[in-house]
Amino acid sequence: MTVKFVVHPITLKAKCFDIVSGSKIVVLNQDDALENDIHPSSRVKVSYKDKDVIAMVDLSTDLVKRGEIGLFEEISTELGVRDGSKITVQIAPRPKSIEYIKRKMDGSPLERDEIKLIIDELMENSLSPVEMAAFITAVYIRGLNYDEVVYLTDAIVESGEQLNLNKRPILDKHCIGGVANNRTTMLVVPIIAAAGMYIPKTSSRSITSAAGTADTMEVLAPVTLSIDEVRDVVLKTKGCIVWGGGMNIAAADDKLIHIRRPLSLDPRGALLASILAKKKSVGATHVIIDIPVGRGAKLQSVTEAQSLADDFIAIGKRINMKIESLITDGSDPIGVGIGPALECKDVLEILDGAGPMDLREKGLILAGRLLELSGAVEPGRGRAVAEHILESGKAMKKFREIIEAQGGDPNVKIDDLPIGDKVYSVVAEKSGRISHVDNRKLSMIARAAGSPFDKGAGIILYCEHGDKVRKGDKLFDIVAESEAKLDFAIKTMEEYNPIELEKIVIQTIRK
Amino acid sequence: MTVKFVVHPITLKAKCFDIVSGSKIVVLNQDDALENDIHPSSRVKVSYKDKDVIAMVDLSTDLVKRGEIGLFEEISTELGVRDGSKITVQIAPRPKSIEYIKRKMDGSPLERDEIKLIIDELMENSLSPVEMAAFITAVYIRGLNYDEVVYLTDAIVESGEQLNLNKRPILDKHCIGGVANNRTTMLVVPIIAAAGMYIPKTSSRSITSAAGTADTMEVLAPVTLSIDEVRDVVLKTKGCIVWGGGMNIAAADDKLIHIRRPLSLDPRGALLASILAKKKSVGATHVIIDIPVGRGAKLQSVTEAQSLADDFIAIGKRINMKIESLITDGSDPIGVGIGPALECKDVLEILDGAGPMDLREKGLILAGRLLELSGAVEPGRGRAVAEHILESGKAMKKFREIIEAQGGDPNVKIDDLPIGDKVYSVVAEKSGRISHVDNRKLSMIARAAGSPFDKGAGIILYCEHGDKVRKGDKLFDIVAESEAKLDFAIKTMEEYNPIELEKIVIQTIRK
Repeated sequence: MTVKFVVHPITLKAKCFDIVSGSKIVVLNQDDALENDIHPSSRVKVSYKDKDVIAMVDLSTDLVKRGEIGLFEEISTELGVRDGSKITVQIAPRPKSIEYIKRKMDGSPLERDEIKLIIDELMENSLSPVEMAAFITAVYIRGLNYDEVVYLTDAIVESGEQLNLNKRPILDKHCIGGVANNRTTMLVVPIIAAAGMYIPKTSSRSITSAAGTADTMEVLAPVTLSIDEVRDVVLKTKGCIVWGGGMNIAAADDKLIHIRRPLSLDPRGALLASILAKKKSVGATHVIIDIPVGRGAKLQSVTEAQSLADDFIAIGKRINMKIESLITDGSDPIGVGIGPALECKDVLEILDGAGPMDLREKGLILAGRLLELSGAVEPGRGRAVAEHILESGKAMKKFREIIEAQGGDPNVKIDDLPIGDKVYSVVAEKSGRISHVDNRKLSMIARAAGSPFDKGAGIILYCEHGDKVRKGDKLFDIVAESEAKLDFAIKTMEEYNPIELEKIVIQTIRK
Repeated sequence: MTVKFVVHPITLKAKCFDIVSGSKIVVLNQDDALENDIHPSSRVKVSYKDKDVIAMVDLSTDLVKRGEIGLFEEISTELGVRDGSKITVQIAPRPKSIEYIKRKMDGSPLERDEIKLIIDELMENSLSPVEMAAFITAVYIRGLNYDEVVYLTDAIVESGEQLNLNKRPILDKHCIGGVANNRTTMLVVPIIAAAGMYIPKTSSRSITSAAGTADTMEVLAPVTLSIDEVRDVVLKTKGCIVWGGGMNIAAADDKLIHIRRPLSLDPRGALLASILAKKKSVGATHVIIDIPVGRGAKLQSVTEAQSLADDFIAIGKRINMKIESLITDGSDPIGVGIGPALECKDVLEILDGAGPMDLREKGLILAGRLLELSGAVEPGRGRAVAEHILESGKAMKKFREIIEAQGGDPNVKIDDLPIGDKVYSVVAEKSGRISHVDNRKLSMIARAAGSPFDKGAGIILYCEHGDKVRKGDKLFDIVAESEAKLDFAIKTMEEYNPIELEKIVIQTIRK
């Protein structure tokens, strides 16, 4: 038998605070709590009329008086409560899924309904961040088998809304990330849509990089669209580039990321489920996964990338999704600009027939493989078809259609892009051959300059791996919208040198 | 290289809330946060004058205006901040110990300085509850070897204050818990102190039981004493019975319990370190560990208890602590009363020469073994010596000395005890032999009646395992201080029948 706390339900008067907390919290008066056997971090059921939510308890001695209950914004909104509303509070029962989390800790695989309950109780806030951290850690240590990944994927899909286009095939792409200015999505989507195939693309905002695809597209058009608005855009233009976080698909994934992020914990099974749930939520049937590998990228080893690639394909088969994984060179940034507006510039230039060749080529390859995977183009012809669509101007025309459908200005010109006017040029301190251009360090400098919040901030690269440079040659510009942020970025650059020259002596060891 | 967030330090005006949160939290205005790349659940360094603390971020749109920072009570007190003080906020670096937590997840044993850093960063609040949950889960799954338990014990000891009596030997006892009214401490301490040995006993308050030893002692004397006050009491009387949580010893343990409790996760290594750190913090050299086993107790299996007993002794040797583990029968409650004042009554009666025999006997055995372990009494003579001290009245005299030294009334009489006057008697519904009296269910009923907050609430038992009862015989009384709580306890009793009679048919299965 599990110990159950038994206490009287108590009735308290609501006092609303407009504080948005990461988790659902109520504040009780310390004496009320003590008398009713409620402790800080107890879990309580808070009821108002016919609604109730599960919340964690904080205590106050004065701000919340005896007989009152302080409600943070998430809860007062969800219950529809105002100051003075009569709220019932009761110790909540222990969530049933804790038993399954412990079973996973002990090394047993979980069944479909058990994983479903963990995600359901996470969504209804019965499971706290501490308990979910235990689950994620157990998944990291014990692993998930393919069946469990499928169950987790399905549970995450069911936790949010789903885009039902009732069309087939639905194409999609995903990049594991970690490479600066890897804006292939903004090339692949218009090419695929111009080829007449559906590609309802949801993208993320940046977490540690200078810009996510959603941040970059936002320079040109709104990206926070409801699921109904997304449906309209896609039925009209066949494509879209929107922020996934804005449309409540795969809702549980946000909560899981909230736990995984502080630990930088990406257990394989959770990563696979997170990505595939987002694809499944938009109905994707054919998906290309881009897995960049190299120094400074998320994955450093090709072997690891191959095993991840295999897992994607194997799970794809179990959920009726045809997947192709491409392991790509992620050791250097792609394109010239880093930062939302600067990355937009690269994309518009390429769609206009010019622009950086490496980004153009990668976009064409990805679009080509996706066309082949879907069966629309015969094997080996994909890249050529994609290039034809790009060169004919059809991709640019389609991109402008999508921009317009999402609510942006379809006639936007490269010169309109809001690029910062505070510029600092970094030059080579000596001559040599460039041995490494570091994605992460460049991202840090771009963020110090204001990216992605300041859309016009970032970096313009003038060199790449393998180039010979002479002392005084320009390596890159730091671009900012304010002098203060420019100064801060310069300081950051001085601390983390992002461009390395070849050396004869790598390291001197003397003892 | 680890990704490091780089953002400008920003200066904000303090706005103090008197909310006590489980963890350290600051509230920023949503727009300030967005602009400075700070997200909910980001970790920031908050500085004021020469002090700084690490805190987690919540967001507000209105309560905290742009340019302000909302501070919860823990932080405003620690920094000495008032409304309007100028506070500097900066994204905090990622705690270094996360690397060690991940190493533990991956199955490597940790070194002394690595475990020390985890505990240090937990104490300075750099590690969040989510990260500590990952550590505890990893410890649960991977286990800790004896060296690691020693390192963890030492790190917990160093996280708090220590009682240095400069005496030897220092005796102590500990019970793993789970048995209702197991107040042996209140017999062992006066007997040992009356025998002339030092026994500075720290006890806990109840978590799920009807009363902890600290709750019970509090009926007779204050138990929240500073470490200096405890030293004075012990140097004067040789013993004390105080609340461990009130004196800031083994401070990290409170934080660890905060994580373990919601998961009911007691990984062996963490449990051992938690208990031994508290003993080491008071300088204990000879310790008896009481490990009750049985249905309704914490441990159900004797094998498990034996393995735990062995671990205690092995680790004791590594930290210069002589330990004896006693596996005791924990299948039934001990004593007659359950609840703070009712358990006091049992203790005072025993010290007075009467009282429940089972509790008296267990107290004598524990005190006797402890006297033998310390070398003060020759093997086999301990119980007799303890009984002599009890029967001579010396134990009662010593107990009154300790009560007085802690600030209570040394002349307290049994009739003075504040026992509730609302009573409901539960009688046998049919005749039979009692097969089980359930500790946990009785605790739940006592708590529903108001224990331990209402000191006078609880249960008086009239029966025990093996008794023959007739229909209508009184089994137990529920005692409360108010009619409302009595009613609630009666309802709880009806839901969870705590007394079981022997049955011929255990279960009927029909399909």
